[in-house]
Amino acid sequence: MRIQYQKLYDKFLEVLLDRGFTEAKAELAAKIFADSSLDGFQSHGINRFPEFIMMIDEGYVDIEAEPEKVESNGNLEIYDGNLGPGALNAHQIMEKAIAKAKKEGVAVMALRNTNHWMRGGTYGWQAAEAGCGAICFTNTLPNLPPWGAKESKLGNNPLVMAIPRQEKHIVLDMAVSQYAYGTLGEYEMKNKELPYPGGYNQEGELTTDPGEILETMRPLPAGYWKGSGLSMMLDLFSALLSGGLNTFLIGKKEKEHAVSQLFLVFDMENKINEETIEQTVESVHSAERVDPEKKPTYPGEGTYLRRKENLKKGIPVQKEAWEKINNL
Amino acid sequence: MRIQYQKLYDKFLEVLLDRGFTEAKAELAAKIFADSSLDGFQSHGINRFPEFIMMIDEGYVDIEAEPEKVESNGNLEIYDGNLGPGALNAHQIMEKAIAKAKKEGVAVMALRNTNHWMRGGTYGWQAAEAGCGAICFTNTLPNLPPWGAKESKLGNNPLVMAIPRQEKHIVLDMAVSQYAYGTLGEYEMKNKELPYPGGYNQEGELTTDPGEILETMRPLPAGYWKGSGLSMMLDLFSALLSGGLNTFLIGKKEKEHAVSQLFLVFDMENKINEETIEQTVESVHSAERVDPEKKPTYPGEGTYLRRKENLKKGIPVQKEAWEKINNL
Repeated sequence: MRIQYQKLYDKFLEVLLDRGFTEAKAELAAKIFADSSLDGFQSHGINRFPEFIMMIDEGYVDIEAEPEKVESNGNLEIYDGNLGPGALNAHQIMEKAIAKAKKEGVAVMALRNTNHWMRGGTYGWQAAEAGCGAICFTNTLPNLPPWGAKESKLGNNPLVMAIPRQEKHIVLDMAVSQYAYGTLGEYEMKNKELPYPGGYNQEGELTTDPGEILETMRPLPAGYWKGSGLSMMLDLFSALLSGGLNTFLIGKKEKEHAVSQLFLVFDMENKINEETIEQTVESVHSAERVDPEKKPTYPGEGTYLRRKENLKKGIPVQKEAWEKINNL
Repeated sequence: MRIQYQKLYDKFLEVLLDRGFTEAKAELAAKIFADSSLDGFQSHGINRFPEFIMMIDEGYVDIEAEPEKVESNGNLEIYDGNLGPGALNAHQIMEKAIAKAKKEGVAVMALRNTNHWMRGGTYGWQAAEAGCGAICFTNTLPNLPPWGAKESKLGNNPLVMAIPRQEKHIVLDMAVSQYAYGTLGEYEMKNKELPYPGGYNQEGELTTDPGEILETMRPLPAGYWKGSGLSMMLDLFSALLSGGLNTFLIGKKEKEHAVSQLFLVFDMENKINEETIEQTVESVHSAERVDPEKKPTYPGEGTYLRRKENLKKGIPVQKEAWEKINNL
């Protein structure tokens, strides 16, 4: 089934207000969840919303808390998220970082003791919309085995990089595994095979069956040892600079909780050389294709297509997921 | 054959002095090349040295040039490398960034119009030795096909991330392809197959034959579409923030020349929480293994082992490569 953006937004808003969010916060959170759904990231949109509400109901997320500045190390500003809603915390830090970058060229903010920020790309698009470049990342609970291991000890930390552009922004939003857990879940729900091996089955063999990977909790790090190393570095940077928890300690909690994040924001106002960007985009677009029907794309390009289509036709939603939300 | 560190360093020094480098610069450049060799990165050590000298002899690298500050955008400092030796330029910018980070918490420096920095890890180790964290990257000429394309339009840009540690630093130095060109070259020289598919052959099939990949110039981006997207972002960030050339324009030059780089440096003096680091390292080390004989490692761990072994036994060098250097 497909649901119009407005209807989805209204439903999110209703549930959030019902949980006691202030109007302003409910509107922003509803927008973030609805936008993720609109852009096709159901894993952090409609499919994730019930878990977010559950985290509130069980007391893991404090809907009244806001990030507060606790420390600074010169130009590095450090915030405590006070276990507020992850998406609202991250959005607020990104807003502060954008304002600082516009004044000072660059802003670096570390956030500890916050919650899952949902779709990482949200904050990349936010920066790009404001004319800023951004690099940001978060750690997670242990859900990715280091290269050479069977046991999940690293986080499938997402890395977000955004470049604003006059026409269409360029936004990379990648987990360090070949497929994010959300993506595996979506393939499983649709009963589809992955296009490329995405992890290991019980026999320790690489497989394209999303269900087998969700069972073993052994997704393949993107680029084998490279994704594994990158995950460790993202965890260390976010935990050390924020003074917050690392993946190891998050794994000791009953739920994924109190994570650490880093936001690097760059004022791009005088730095947007359109020619540089268009040359890069054009050279990717015009490269000789493997499949003549498939144009190589830039990060975020598919998002625009989905956004346009879903705005017009409504957002594809699984009946089950919609029912769950209506029962909240 | 194996050659002692000192002998290799002395030979590099001799050649560099012969080319007209000042003593201080010759010593630093010889150390950077010898250290890369010592750590096992022959592709940017002994095997690359003759090409570096050729670039000087042909006038692409100006051995007298130094980076100069041309612009700043608040806290972002922008330097022109004036086409000086890439390793010396990068080393100097990293030194400036370390000093700035120690005063201001964070330093962000962009460098344009510089030359190949050789082994990217050099500047990660440099930051870590000074007690700083670092994220740095460079663009390159087009030598990596975007995902879905056959033609090299993106750069195999290396990404370096370093965290200082009391015992042994943690340093990630990864190209965005599954295997760096240097690594492919080394496997080919040794007549060995790659352990995992690393690119495409003439038939468009994934292969573990390094020679076939060097022929097609179609290495596999690490993580398929992920490495491809990451490459584009690293190119855009370094070119836009420095105001320098992008991979597209570098590809128009006769030789890889006038590249763009970005250096992010973080003061870690009060940020090194040993417990956080040791928990992370220990959890990776202790994870249940795929192969009982092979311990999962942290980025840079293998480097320490090679460094120790090569210091003791001498650096493994191919006879041909050594002869080439003796003929310079």
